[in-house]
Amino acid sequence: MKNITSGELKNASLPQLKVLCEELREEIFRTVSVCGGHLSSNLGAAELTVALHRVFDFPTDKIVFDVGHQCYTHKLLSGRADRFHTLRKEGGLSGFPKREESVYDCYDTGHAGTAISAALGIAKARDLKGEKFNVIALVGDGSFNNGLIFEALNSLKILNANILIVLNDNGMSISPTVGGTHEVLTGIKEGRASVEDVALFERFGLQYMGVYNGNDLTELLPALENAKNALRNTSVLLHVTTKKGHGYPFSENAPLETHGVSPHAKCYEYSTALGEELISLAEKDERIVAVTAAMTDSLGLRPFFDKFPKRSIDVGICEEHASVLCAGLATEGMKPYYAIYSTFLQRAFDEIIHDVCGQKLPVTFCIDRAGVTGADGETHQGVFDLSYLSFIPNLTIAIPKNVTEFREMIRLSADYPYPLAIRYPREGTEGEIGDVKFGKFEVLHSTMSDIVILAAGERCIDLAGHLCALAKEQGVDVTVVNARFLKPLDEEYLSAVEAGCVVTIEDNALIGGLGDAVSRFYRNSGKTILSYGYRDVFLPHGEAHSLMEKYGLNLQKMLSEILGYARR
Amino acid sequence: MKNITSGELKNASLPQLKVLCEELREEIFRTVSVCGGHLSSNLGAAELTVALHRVFDFPTDKIVFDVGHQCYTHKLLSGRADRFHTLRKEGGLSGFPKREESVYDCYDTGHAGTAISAALGIAKARDLKGEKFNVIALVGDGSFNNGLIFEALNSLKILNANILIVLNDNGMSISPTVGGTHEVLTGIKEGRASVEDVALFERFGLQYMGVYNGNDLTELLPALENAKNALRNTSVLLHVTTKKGHGYPFSENAPLETHGVSPHAKCYEYSTALGEELISLAEKDERIVAVTAAMTDSLGLRPFFDKFPKRSIDVGICEEHASVLCAGLATEGMKPYYAIYSTFLQRAFDEIIHDVCGQKLPVTFCIDRAGVTGADGETHQGVFDLSYLSFIPNLTIAIPKNVTEFREMIRLSADYPYPLAIRYPREGTEGEIGDVKFGKFEVLHSTMSDIVILAAGERCIDLAGHLCALAKEQGVDVTVVNARFLKPLDEEYLSAVEAGCVVTIEDNALIGGLGDAVSRFYRNSGKTILSYGYRDVFLPHGEAHSLMEKYGLNLQKMLSEILGYARR
Repeated sequence: MKNITSGELKNASLPQLKVLCEELREEIFRTVSVCGGHLSSNLGAAELTVALHRVFDFPTDKIVFDVGHQCYTHKLLSGRADRFHTLRKEGGLSGFPKREESVYDCYDTGHAGTAISAALGIAKARDLKGEKFNVIALVGDGSFNNGLIFEALNSLKILNANILIVLNDNGMSISPTVGGTHEVLTGIKEGRASVEDVALFERFGLQYMGVYNGNDLTELLPALENAKNALRNTSVLLHVTTKKGHGYPFSENAPLETHGVSPHAKCYEYSTALGEELISLAEKDERIVAVTAAMTDSLGLRPFFDKFPKRSIDVGICEEHASVLCAGLATEGMKPYYAIYSTFLQRAFDEIIHDVCGQKLPVTFCIDRAGVTGADGETHQGVFDLSYLSFIPNLTIAIPKNVTEFREMIRLSADYPYPLAIRYPREGTEGEIGDVKFGKFEVLHSTMSDIVILAAGERCIDLAGHLCALAKEQGVDVTVVNARFLKPLDEEYLSAVEAGCVVTIEDNALIGGLGDAVSRFYRNSGKTILSYGYRDVFLPHGEAHSLMEKYGLNLQKMLSEILGYARR
Repeated sequence: MKNITSGELKNASLPQLKVLCEELREEIFRTVSVCGGHLSSNLGAAELTVALHRVFDFPTDKIVFDVGHQCYTHKLLSGRADRFHTLRKEGGLSGFPKREESVYDCYDTGHAGTAISAALGIAKARDLKGEKFNVIALVGDGSFNNGLIFEALNSLKILNANILIVLNDNGMSISPTVGGTHEVLTGIKEGRASVEDVALFERFGLQYMGVYNGNDLTELLPALENAKNALRNTSVLLHVTTKKGHGYPFSENAPLETHGVSPHAKCYEYSTALGEELISLAEKDERIVAVTAAMTDSLGLRPFFDKFPKRSIDVGICEEHASVLCAGLATEGMKPYYAIYSTFLQRAFDEIIHDVCGQKLPVTFCIDRAGVTGADGETHQGVFDLSYLSFIPNLTIAIPKNVTEFREMIRLSADYPYPLAIRYPREGTEGEIGDVKFGKFEVLHSTMSDIVILAAGERCIDLAGHLCALAKEQGVDVTVVNARFLKPLDEEYLSAVEAGCVVTIEDNALIGGLGDAVSRFYRNSGKTILSYGYRDVFLPHGEAHSLMEKYGLNLQKMLSEILGYARR
């Protein structure tokens, strides 16, 4: 698709704009089919984004995209159409807004609920500097459940800096939007609020405006003009009802399946295994409860939710609340499993400490998408969890070597009476396992060698296997160990190690993970420690294995350092 | 004060209950005067708590105290009156609810906003188990700004487990409560809601009830009875208006000064210095903005707020929002300083990563009450910040050696273009300083010794000074270094160290802090590393220096290990 100038967009006729929307949708559909990405949310927001670009003057005016799943049209309209085919590819366009990519992207996002806070910061700075421009936060209704959004709304009158909040209401988070806020919004029928609702928003400092059909430019354009005028005197909430996946019947009818689209067929084996094992536990144990924050399907919990609706809780995009809720459940003897992506669990960090581990409650965190995740980039890599969990007292941290071992860990967890975190990547394989005991490593390949490799998790054990084979070709034997618990560390095993060189490999930032724990244990032992994990930078989007290699888990470098030790 | 049985309370006449409230207030006032603690919030909640104990049957019924600043009367009424004189003392009663302390405490708190989530978890477990009891969340109006509360409210209809939320509305957080939510609550005049407000709460699944004078038992008792009856069919919000500090004119008139009371006069020098330096920066630099989450006074920002009201932002107890707001301000060229306690910054963990450091924005986090804090116990110790910040890319972490150096760091920070965290304890001293350069240590006492002590922060540098003197008495020289930046680590200095033994001392958990960073640097160097910080447990309440000694910073143990090395 060729780049469209701002002038072309401003001067186009309404029929031309409608044609443009279809072209944009086609381009998005075509690109996502090849590169993967977020389809239905972007299809549904085409008219809204075109209308915003028509009415406002970017980049002088600023727009913050909450989460960023709806930014593709914005990218296509801001000088990036000619590079759009590189979407989510290494070195190509990011799937999310990125300040480094364009002056049209004023704020980076990826996690939910930040847009209003960020927009308020930008608007407050504008007012302090005495400048004039408009600031817009574009937020989906799924994010509107999030506590951060509420904290920002609470702050509107404090800051007294006018912004336009566009609520793109398609009735869906990634799962259908749930909870009281959604009912409040749904109570406001199709963008038309009652007198009471309007009064409520006014107390927060917002003038309420609605758009009945947010996929119709003839409604959108005048509504945005009105909102722009009103912004001179007040902050505005423009409630726009759109249809997720609009224009593509397949996507309209299956918004869940098409929210995030992968370019190739994938196996989701860890999440599938989680669902299966939890069902089998729950059939005989009434304490088992599954909790998620708007990610039922991608975490593999749909079959559990279908089978045990009473013991299934989706709280919406409320990661903090889900954690505390689990703690409450556990105080009364229930056994909650909170499944969540590694990067999103960062939101519940204080609650893991304060509520779960502080009270030593048997909550199990099932941490999916741990390690490098790839195409979603900086905001979605799961490379910090070992670091942010390792220093929390009372927490056990498990890293299964394959899906089969993961299944066994879930089975064993049912009777484990303490806080437990199990972290795993998206994809994996079934395989052989030995006895799993809490806090115990497993020797996978034992030699009389002077070199022991401690590898954590499936990807790193794969790497260790390759290293072992390649070193063997060079006449060097190494022992390979499944370091399946970061905490408690298997000090009994470590104490017994006679080898002079211990190598650690982890799919996590190097700072604060397994390497540091092993180094701490062997401090002053005289052993040589070689640690491999990710460098101290944010990992951009790209293909997962390529990122692993580039940012710290390079097979050749590891091999050469291990051989270097062997031949010292 | 002697223990009161549940039977005595249930059978007492109304005049007897009134006398009891006065006695409770006197006991609280007397004890807090000696032990320190939270005065005004507890004084104001005496009648409410007595009424709750009269109407409900604890511990069968469960009550979760949000934050826990209002739990003293509850402790006095639940078999702990005879031990109340030990409040906040090592080995004595905690100032917060503690499950380990009493069956009447069903959930531990300390941070704001967790009570409704926890109560919902307890109530959901009750319903799943088919049990019958009442669950109450007692929440102050300050917490009602917090996003976590909103996430829990959003979840009421999802969980469909009835709870009673008692909103104790005294119009104050620690600072006066601010923001839109407060205006919504204030719109509901003195516990009496309009038809619109009632309708709003109903959409969230709450029946609204109000109490005009929450310090009057004749109003409170029937209102609680009504709420208890209504709980059979619905969750209830009982909005109770109380007077913070009720019954003590001094406290009523000065609720800010008497929110938290220390047993002795204290100097708040780091916070005072923060206020002074920010004022002096702001006088010549229009970019400077100060941000707080409801802690203006205790962080030393009151003079700044008085002098620069436009550039002063108190967002209420919204730690996450404050972080993102700062990021937004920084994208537009402002220079925000976000002052917060170490333990509360845990709430903004994801936002530090995702919003501030991910975009490499020049936000300065002024992290007060870092290290052991003492009498408030587990939930208030600031011993994790070095660990949870150390692995975040793009972040500089500074640890001033005294108040004077802290002042210099704040001055230098104005032109520092990256994310910066400065952590410090409450109290400190002015003193001599040298040149402060980002990422550079300072040698305080140089010898030709084979032992180098790297100490981070005022308390640890004090300890290092003592160690140095005591070792000297034993004929052992040591070098003492002010390790004032954890990140970037002063690799130039470390590379030049010729000594065979490097000692690290930090007022932080041992896992993930300075010791680990230095060990990582010296890995395979052959140097002996001795690291001192806190053991991997939650540190209870007690006197700060006593806790330091018990949990990892024991002078005699350090001395003996250092001498052991010297004489090896």
